[in-house]
Amino acid sequence: MFYLIGLGLGDAKDITVKGLEIVRKCDKVLLEGYTSILTVGKDILEEYYGRPLVLADRELCEGAIDDILLEAKNAEVALLVVGDPLGATTHTDMLLRAKQFGVKTQIIHNASIMNAVSCCGLQLYNFGETVSIPYWTDTWKPDSFFEKIVANYSRNLHTLCLLDIKVKEPTEESLTKKVRQYMEPKFMSVKEAAEQLVQIIENNPDASGIYKNSIAVGLSRVGATDQQIAVMSLDAMRSFDLGPPLHSLVIPAPNLHPLEMDYLAQFKSDS
Amino acid sequence: MFYLIGLGLGDAKDITVKGLEIVRKCDKVLLEGYTSILTVGKDILEEYYGRPLVLADRELCEGAIDDILLEAKNAEVALLVVGDPLGATTHTDMLLRAKQFGVKTQIIHNASIMNAVSCCGLQLYNFGETVSIPYWTDTWKPDSFFEKIVANYSRNLHTLCLLDIKVKEPTEESLTKKVRQYMEPKFMSVKEAAEQLVQIIENNPDASGIYKNSIAVGLSRVGATDQQIAVMSLDAMRSFDLGPPLHSLVIPAPNLHPLEMDYLAQFKSDS
Repeated sequence: MFYLIGLGLGDAKDITVKGLEIVRKCDKVLLEGYTSILTVGKDILEEYYGRPLVLADRELCEGAIDDILLEAKNAEVALLVVGDPLGATTHTDMLLRAKQFGVKTQIIHNASIMNAVSCCGLQLYNFGETVSIPYWTDTWKPDSFFEKIVANYSRNLHTLCLLDIKVKEPTEESLTKKVRQYMEPKFMSVKEAAEQLVQIIENNPDASGIYKNSIAVGLSRVGATDQQIAVMSLDAMRSFDLGPPLHSLVIPAPNLHPLEMDYLAQFKSDS
Repeated sequence: MFYLIGLGLGDAKDITVKGLEIVRKCDKVLLEGYTSILTVGKDILEEYYGRPLVLADRELCEGAIDDILLEAKNAEVALLVVGDPLGATTHTDMLLRAKQFGVKTQIIHNASIMNAVSCCGLQLYNFGETVSIPYWTDTWKPDSFFEKIVANYSRNLHTLCLLDIKVKEPTEESLTKKVRQYMEPKFMSVKEAAEQLVQIIENNPDASGIYKNSIAVGLSRVGATDQQIAVMSLDAMRSFDLGPPLHSLVIPAPNLHPLEMDYLAQFKSDS
């Protein structure tokens, strides 16, 4: 049996009781570590679950997954995923491959940023399409996600922006070498996302209805005890520090429900 | 302290470890029973948690909530909610009231249909605005949700349709009487939702791009061991039984990603 188990968002105890029972009985437990992270490390999880965890990076999940699935034909194997296990395409693909191999699967759902974002008081049913904001480089500055934000905004819908994560990314120079070298892990902050958004807005003035003084909601470490939420203009958010990762950003709809306004007001910054 | 604890979607063991620890130490534990239901009843939950649960119906949650919040000033009180606790406006409102009373709050997130719907293989970031389909009566047949489905569809986005739930609804005749009488609880099935959608389509032929032979995805008891997913035309779905509640319906975008198509193909019905 191959289990995909969601860990939720905060720490070791955000796993469900059902998930924990499976982890404790499995022959092999892998921890997926490149699409998201918890606020605690692998060692804390190992101690709490009472099990050694094999770190599963992108190479393993996308390259060597068939070997793991074949192992799951005659053993109990679990892959632990931060948030809900079906948030990323990779995991849906794994389930399809498992089926081809005749391996049984079970999914243990959990909270993910896609529903826990409601902690800022904006109602989930008022969200439109979710977008991902990628890290820009000197030569590559994609901005197609902004059109989606504008499309949501024009229909009076909020947009959840998932911010880029770079974990175990090979350096450009090492791509042609035998021995891969990896970049330091990096997680886009609300500050960095706001900076890229303001640049797009300044390149397209008056075209979108969204301006640099439009309100944005920054969220960090949602679900953890030190979760932070901040409400201010995109412009001000460019210099606002929300602490350690993970961060997410929401561009609220232009017209909010009174309850949404009251709730957001708690998080308004003076700056 | 006032805790809002998500129970997830399936049974008693879908609560998180953190949530269970809080339930076991609280002075009073309420179970919200009118916005959603688990596949197991209150008695099973009480046995598993080892705690008596007070059933919190709409009247209590919307009328007598202030008394409960005041109680939480000097005691540990938890409200258990199926899915994630912030899926419904009522709970956001409770948190605002708690703040006014100076009562501390904590939210324990969990899976909800808003993210677990990804179990059908449609990717969450391809979903647009979520809609609710209400039960029609002889004289009241609202269809504004259909415009939202069409707006998503035209942007190539999927629509999650949440289906109506009637729990402890007073009968119309009893509204003017001293003693309230209540209707039998009812939960809209995928069959009933498809029937209403086909009626709307037949009243607006060719206006939307969505036809009665368009594909729909029916889901029942998501997250439970007897979860069912069925893929067929809206027309066929009018006579397809997906078993006991809760049900949800998805209208997929017109152009699917190959991985989404492959995944959905598993659930295609011959009918």
